[in-house]
Amino acid sequence: MASSLEETVRQRIDYKTKPIGALGQLEELALQIALIQQTETPVLTNPHMLVFAGDHGLASEGVSAYPADVTYGMVKNFIAGGAAINVFCKQNGLKLLVCDVGVNGTFDENTERFVKYKIRPGTRNMHVEPAMTPDECAAAIDAGKTLVNGIQYRGCNVVGFGEMGIGNTSSASLLMHRFTNLSLPDCVGRGTGLNDAGLHRKLTILQSVADQYQHLTNPTDILAAMGGLEIAAMVGGMLQAAENGMVILVDGFIATSALLVATTLNSAVRQHCIFCHQSDEAGHRLMLDLLNAKPLLNLNLRLGEGTGCALAYPLVQAAVNMLNDMATMDIL
Amino acid sequence: MASSLEETVRQRIDYKTKPIGALGQLEELALQIALIQQTETPVLTNPHMLVFAGDHGLASEGVSAYPADVTYGMVKNFIAGGAAINVFCKQNGLKLLVCDVGVNGTFDENTERFVKYKIRPGTRNMHVEPAMTPDECAAAIDAGKTLVNGIQYRGCNVVGFGEMGIGNTSSASLLMHRFTNLSLPDCVGRGTGLNDAGLHRKLTILQSVADQYQHLTNPTDILAAMGGLEIAAMVGGMLQAAENGMVILVDGFIATSALLVATTLNSAVRQHCIFCHQSDEAGHRLMLDLLNAKPLLNLNLRLGEGTGCALAYPLVQAAVNMLNDMATMDIL
Repeated sequence: MASSLEETVRQRIDYKTKPIGALGQLEELALQIALIQQTETPVLTNPHMLVFAGDHGLASEGVSAYPADVTYGMVKNFIAGGAAINVFCKQNGLKLLVCDVGVNGTFDENTERFVKYKIRPGTRNMHVEPAMTPDECAAAIDAGKTLVNGIQYRGCNVVGFGEMGIGNTSSASLLMHRFTNLSLPDCVGRGTGLNDAGLHRKLTILQSVADQYQHLTNPTDILAAMGGLEIAAMVGGMLQAAENGMVILVDGFIATSALLVATTLNSAVRQHCIFCHQSDEAGHRLMLDLLNAKPLLNLNLRLGEGTGCALAYPLVQAAVNMLNDMATMDIL
Repeated sequence: MASSLEETVRQRIDYKTKPIGALGQLEELALQIALIQQTETPVLTNPHMLVFAGDHGLASEGVSAYPADVTYGMVKNFIAGGAAINVFCKQNGLKLLVCDVGVNGTFDENTERFVKYKIRPGTRNMHVEPAMTPDECAAAIDAGKTLVNGIQYRGCNVVGFGEMGIGNTSSASLLMHRFTNLSLPDCVGRGTGLNDAGLHRKLTILQSVADQYQHLTNPTDILAAMGGLEIAAMVGGMLQAAENGMVILVDGFIATSALLVATTLNSAVRQHCIFCHQSDEAGHRLMLDLLNAKPLLNLNLRLGEGTGCALAYPLVQAAVNMLNDMATMDIL
């Protein structure tokens, strides 16, 4: 049945007024979305960008170029509408929701684009103890699932996942290391801008953390020990989005680390994913290779927030419009 | 003065709520547009896509996978609104104008998006005689200039250039060969889809043409001998857009070959150019390298029509919006 739909959609694309294959990656994208939606006339409705925010206890060890309270400040910025993700979502017609699952601070909750599912005000310092208890990690996963179900209820069938959390490239690197078996140095980069000494320090601390939890083998145990609340929420959101038959927009290094966890828990998530950009963070290219993913953009972005998703969204829309709106060879 | 503006704009970008450099290529793009417009608050107004169409006498030699009358059919498709460029321009808010400078056929002229500056119904067969006389080539250049002045008069300050013309990768390859001094085989590709035998035949014919006009040294003489009416019109349009201080969106292989001619005539054109995508046509990568250009997209497109420009336009808009709309570090 699926393979028959695939054949139908390929013929439809090939019969558009263009040489066969001349729209390259957009043709593959149109086919993928058609297969996700199980229709030869897919539509994208009420696109959402979910940005999960959380603090990291490990930040106190100096693994980031920025102080931890930047997480709080940036979430206020998201709420006020001044961050890059606000600008790009507004331009490209994505509805932005910012979800506090673990920020160390409180926010004005009376704003349309803010959602509170706070589990705790930041993870524990994973260098000392696991970042989350199993219950906290499960609650963060549930927060992501609940939010995705909520936007689907409001008619959304395509969702991007972004994040904010000072220190979260450390979690992402550790998860990458454990879920890919690549060496830790291959998984660790400069984050928002560490210098050489900072990078060396980060690597030393992360190696110590990795050794500490090497005995763990259950995916959610590993996520709880070395992840972040915002990363666990993205894992839950991605799992639910796939379950709901939605299109998933994957952002950069942190979001892809969440996807590595999600695909380990349910390999069917992968086929729902559109890889929006290749981050400048070292390691992201390796992740994408392992996922057999060719991202839509490669603009040397390394901001997070879901900015790659918001910037790539018009290409996703273009693929669908090509399939639905282009004339066929009959007119020639 | 210019270097002081550059410093001001760089500081403005660095002071946005993001790590320095975290928006990568978009930051360079914002700076470039600010410098083109000589302001720290650039705006993009009434964006246009100009698609020039013309037939090629050389097509009778069998250098294309498609018959020559596809040019006529596709221009009708542009006018009717069913081509890829129509779909992408409509989605991304660019106004499309299709300009017949040399199609072998007549069109209903009572449509908003059609402009007629027909010089002649296709170039001559350059394998037999020069494709255009000097006067015809000058008239095509003038057509491009006139059209660009017209849209600027209507408030446009950013313009993309696209083309339609069966056989025009042959002209583009020959122009590339002459204006870069790269060997002809490095400049010749499969166009809209030649097989190996077709590619071999194309290369043999183009080598013969190149030999025939090797004695020419004046840029416009070379353009007249081996170019196309739509390519000459793009050359004129690009020259005028730069003269007018407009932002130029450069599409794929054919459009970039026109740019090679335009920059030879006026090197200042280069700084007005945003390179929208890297075409799958062999040789385009080499052209871009020579122009020191990193394109915004690399989606294996090989369609022409200006589709790369229309698809990349939201990224150009995003760069400008970042500069104007993002909050500064003061809020953190």
